[in-house]
Amino acid sequence: SDEIVDKCPPVLKNFKDFNINKVIAENPRCKTATIHGQIAGEDAVVLLEKTAFDASHLGNYLSELTTLNNTLKNDIYGTYDAFPPLIENAIRATVIHPATEKHIKKYTDQPCYVVHETPELYTNITLPLIISKQFSIQWVYNILGKKKEADRIVFEDPDPEQGFVLLPDMKWDCKDTRSLYLVAIVHKHEVKSLRDLTADSLPLLNNILHKGLDAIKERFGVPSSQVHVYLHYQPSYYHLHVHFAHVQCEAPGMGADRAHMLIDVIDNIQIASNFYQRKTLTFTVREEDDLYKKYKDSGYFDKS
Amino acid sequence: SDEIVDKCPPVLKNFKDFNINKVIAENPRCKTATIHGQIAGEDAVVLLEKTAFDASHLGNYLSELTTLNNTLKNDIYGTYDAFPPLIENAIRATVIHPATEKHIKKYTDQPCYVVHETPELYTNITLPLIISKQFSIQWVYNILGKKKEADRIVFEDPDPEQGFVLLPDMKWDCKDTRSLYLVAIVHKHEVKSLRDLTADSLPLLNNILHKGLDAIKERFGVPSSQVHVYLHYQPSYYHLHVHFAHVQCEAPGMGADRAHMLIDVIDNIQIASNFYQRKTLTFTVREEDDLYKKYKDSGYFDKS
Repeated sequence: SDEIVDKCPPVLKNFKDFNINKVIAENPRCKTATIHGQIAGEDAVVLLEKTAFDASHLGNYLSELTTLNNTLKNDIYGTYDAFPPLIENAIRATVIHPATEKHIKKYTDQPCYVVHETPELYTNITLPLIISKQFSIQWVYNILGKKKEADRIVFEDPDPEQGFVLLPDMKWDCKDTRSLYLVAIVHKHEVKSLRDLTADSLPLLNNILHKGLDAIKERFGVPSSQVHVYLHYQPSYYHLHVHFAHVQCEAPGMGADRAHMLIDVIDNIQIASNFYQRKTLTFTVREEDDLYKKYKDSGYFDKS
Repeated sequence: SDEIVDKCPPVLKNFKDFNINKVIAENPRCKTATIHGQIAGEDAVVLLEKTAFDASHLGNYLSELTTLNNTLKNDIYGTYDAFPPLIENAIRATVIHPATEKHIKKYTDQPCYVVHETPELYTNITLPLIISKQFSIQWVYNILGKKKEADRIVFEDPDPEQGFVLLPDMKWDCKDTRSLYLVAIVHKHEVKSLRDLTADSLPLLNNILHKGLDAIKERFGVPSSQVHVYLHYQPSYYHLHVHFAHVQCEAPGMGADRAHMLIDVIDNIQIASNFYQRKTLTFTVREEDDLYKKYKDSGYFDKS
């Protein structure tokens, strides 16, 4: 276990040792920025995100502790730069360090292209790439084996075939239920993605849907009518997992080019057991994705 | 001019005199919150918004001046609460004061609910409402009949069964192709939505997909690999129409709770001609929607 600790870079106290290389992504609407740089000569990626307002703290904002500098006044409308008390000024920083080329690419804004993946394209292009280039998913096994984040687990069904672990996604602070976002990771190891699901997967999928929603209702008081439950295709890692997000939070992965509602997946498999082996699946790839390059090299985009 | 000054409430120095009544809107993704309250006994609405990161200021954030409190550490991933220097802590505040009932309503969020519409629910709840409450779609007939917006038409196939008119959506200014957004409206009158599509609709759907993409490539130079083509369910009007949007534009209607890729629709109907008559369809309704009220009155939400 010493060895595991040694491989982990230390916790940071501030950004003193961080050298900025480049802003690799920005989303002004979501108030996020992603920066590539170095810490002690090693590549690092820092994701900065302003935090959502916590309703229970609004009294701190809307008090005499918040200084206002007027910037515009017209009739009943006034705009201000407001400086809230220190305690409310935290932003969220995620540090990936040391980061590989792959991480830097993953977090960099890029042009996108649509792929309509037929079963043949899956077999001939996507699958060989998944097998050859698979990201390390040691962190998934750490969670499933309770070596990491065990205290964050909201619910577990330990069954090796139908079981899963439900825990908050790193993007959610577990406070504001209106941005509720959890992920269920299955215990079973062989299911890579949507493409592998058949009628045999129905007990697993139904189990996740119902027990996941029940656990969220019990723990966070959010009823099932307020939760979207979906899979990603392509997923960001090829070990089956399911997303649970509050309907009110415009989750970025909720686009129809990536999200597949779990209830639809179950329904489709009931219509045809091999639905996801027969189906053309549409997704968006970014220019720096290995998958984009494979499709490009195959001549896929020449016809568009 | 003295009189004008008198009618305007004074510029605020801080929020000392603001009494919070209620949080009427929140968007955790965009980091905004809207509060209804009173200033000196008069209604007021305050909109708070965290500010976007200014790339030229990132050096202030990523320096020793930013204190970090570690919240999670797993392998190469670490998350922190970060406290940047004071100068970066401004948020934006808009104050509407005195505010009328109308202002308060305008800025109030409506809760959303998920509906899983089975074929039975469609027949018993949704369809009767569509028939009884149908919005006037005279404006659609005006476009199809060239009485309105004829000069905006990008492409037309006049065939009464398989034909359609393609024109820019009102939300697109026709300038920046990265926010390209067009709509194809079918000439045929009897097709209300996705629910009515069967194998008989395949020639119409394939025609829209291929001729629509060809026209967009020819007119705007945007290849098909950069365009998402989808239908909405529920649609905003019940006369079949198809959306064409650039992959890069985060179109609000692209969520998996509303958008159905046209290529998937075609594929699904090929798997089963009555796919959309058999399928449970998931969508989100807002509390003020007539559809929400109908489902609520039926007891649909009691079980969640």
